[in-house]
Amino acid sequence: MARVYLDHNATMPLRPEARAAMIEAMDLVGNPSSVHAEGRAAKGLMERARGQIAEAIGAQAADIVFVSGATEAAALALAGRGLHGAAIEHDAVRSWITEDLPVNAEGRVTVTDPARSTLQVANSETGILQDLPEGLAVSDWTQAFGKIPLAFDWSGVEMALISAHKIGGPKGIGALILKRGLDVEARIRGGGQEMGRRSGTENLIGIAGFGAAAQATQQGLETGRAERLDKLRNILESALDLRTKDTIFVGKGSQRLPNTSCIVTPGWKGETQVMQMDLAGFAVSAGSACSSGKVRSSNVLRAMGLTDGEANCAIRVSLGPDTTEAEVLAFAEAWGAAYDRFRARGR
Amino acid sequence: MARVYLDHNATMPLRPEARAAMIEAMDLVGNPSSVHAEGRAAKGLMERARGQIAEAIGAQAADIVFVSGATEAAALALAGRGLHGAAIEHDAVRSWITEDLPVNAEGRVTVTDPARSTLQVANSETGILQDLPEGLAVSDWTQAFGKIPLAFDWSGVEMALISAHKIGGPKGIGALILKRGLDVEARIRGGGQEMGRRSGTENLIGIAGFGAAAQATQQGLETGRAERLDKLRNILESALDLRTKDTIFVGKGSQRLPNTSCIVTPGWKGETQVMQMDLAGFAVSAGSACSSGKVRSSNVLRAMGLTDGEANCAIRVSLGPDTTEAEVLAFAEAWGAAYDRFRARGR
Repeated sequence: MARVYLDHNATMPLRPEARAAMIEAMDLVGNPSSVHAEGRAAKGLMERARGQIAEAIGAQAADIVFVSGATEAAALALAGRGLHGAAIEHDAVRSWITEDLPVNAEGRVTVTDPARSTLQVANSETGILQDLPEGLAVSDWTQAFGKIPLAFDWSGVEMALISAHKIGGPKGIGALILKRGLDVEARIRGGGQEMGRRSGTENLIGIAGFGAAAQATQQGLETGRAERLDKLRNILESALDLRTKDTIFVGKGSQRLPNTSCIVTPGWKGETQVMQMDLAGFAVSAGSACSSGKVRSSNVLRAMGLTDGEANCAIRVSLGPDTTEAEVLAFAEAWGAAYDRFRARGR
Repeated sequence: MARVYLDHNATMPLRPEARAAMIEAMDLVGNPSSVHAEGRAAKGLMERARGQIAEAIGAQAADIVFVSGATEAAALALAGRGLHGAAIEHDAVRSWITEDLPVNAEGRVTVTDPARSTLQVANSETGILQDLPEGLAVSDWTQAFGKIPLAFDWSGVEMALISAHKIGGPKGIGALILKRGLDVEARIRGGGQEMGRRSGTENLIGIAGFGAAAQATQQGLETGRAERLDKLRNILESALDLRTKDTIFVGKGSQRLPNTSCIVTPGWKGETQVMQMDLAGFAVSAGSACSSGKVRSSNVLRAMGLTDGEANCAIRVSLGPDTTEAEVLAFAEAWGAAYDRFRARGR
């Protein structure tokens, strides 16, 4: 069997639609800020992509600010504001917040002052979903976009962050979505692009891929991808559950992303599991996407009340639109065999 | 004749080497921060590109910080420092400086306190080159990189800014180059990528293209591209000079980039010329790359002592590695014909 990639929350393989749009964009020679025909063609492509993203996210094209990714979008939305947030937010959000919103054992966050708070829609490690309060200042939609239906204009949120590479677009492009009438102080200044909110010649090829990926991901949602992934994830968890006695599926009783499984096996370190699975041909992760290169226990799981020991023993399996039942079952078999060896060593 | 693109200082068409490297990178599915095989492959590609760029710019790979472009690099190097600079700097630099360094009529800047100053190598509108004083805090190499030989480690500069799309790489990727031992405070924070200097999942496809473009541009320099462009640019200016009486070639007596011609024809507005040339099939610009979509007189030319009226009447013709003599002569012919019509209207 070829390698099986089950780390879609870290990054998704490029969708064929995004690939095609990017290769097409490579032939455009102009700078979108230039007034000549080549510049206008580049600008036209960029605005078509902006429209595709707006359509997919339920927003207006004029409210979408292209940035280099959700991490930059977080800085643009959050820096200097001291908003309240929870310890389960992504590090890109945690870098800028007052981390004082409580998280319960089910991973749910209580927001008391929405206008001064930030809250993610979906957690990258557990997939657990939050209800967003009306008037929420900022929301990280990076992991939720493309996996569950979202509509910015109906969300009651003032600003949302999204990233292309989590939906099968390229890495290095994302967006801040702004409620009409709001503005942000530019952190990258100069040429005045993006209506002065974010200067710098736009990442045209990346934007083309982002637009195509947004359109494709939206079509996939409308044709039952979430339901299919939810079934596959449940097959995975049932298969793993048959092999073990003490494994916990974090958030199993909560509303979750359909593609994400957070699997805690006390005593068996997550990083060891990731390495063993890698050798067996499967890509999964311990912890969140951006910190998966680092060895430390998950702040998300600790915030939910798991001990350091438990939080150290988590892996995340995240499925993608092309994941098959055969792949999921092959993973369960390989993981079960490794688990048996782990148990045989007497922990 | 097909359209002729003579606006390479605004942005260069994607080089075939960059295109091929980007398409190859599209097949990598991993996040460079992930520890599994897919992640390590992505990281390997990224580091290979970093090495290509280091080689081309005469720096060490570890000193290259990937960012979304030179505009972001400028913010990372300059924000909050209040360095001294001149009015001829790019807007991305001007946004952060104390604009008090004098510029003479030849476009040359006097730096009194290098450790507290920034100075470009080459001006985007005129191509005029500066001598960089030893110990200069920050230097914008965006327009010079790939057009003249540069070596960071021998430059005496503490930080330099470069951009991929000005050398035939993609838009949306650039770098800050840091002298060993120096650091910058991250403005985009979270996952800790780029040794904590710039977080966010790296623009892998863009980085692959940047690396390949850097390698190709370096090879082009070593095989006489600058000399060839210098000859072509002189052919262009001679051909235009034959057609006019009052046209000025700004910086003709100064050291200039070999590919750039800044052409002032008093009374004939630059934006009008750009539109007329566009209709005739030629892409050129009025003013600098990032502000070429806006209508205002050039701050660069005004800083050199040209009047507002003169500064309004400039166009920039910037040649690229694939520009031919036939293209340059066709432009001169079309421009000369438009000039005759302009004169016939009695200015």
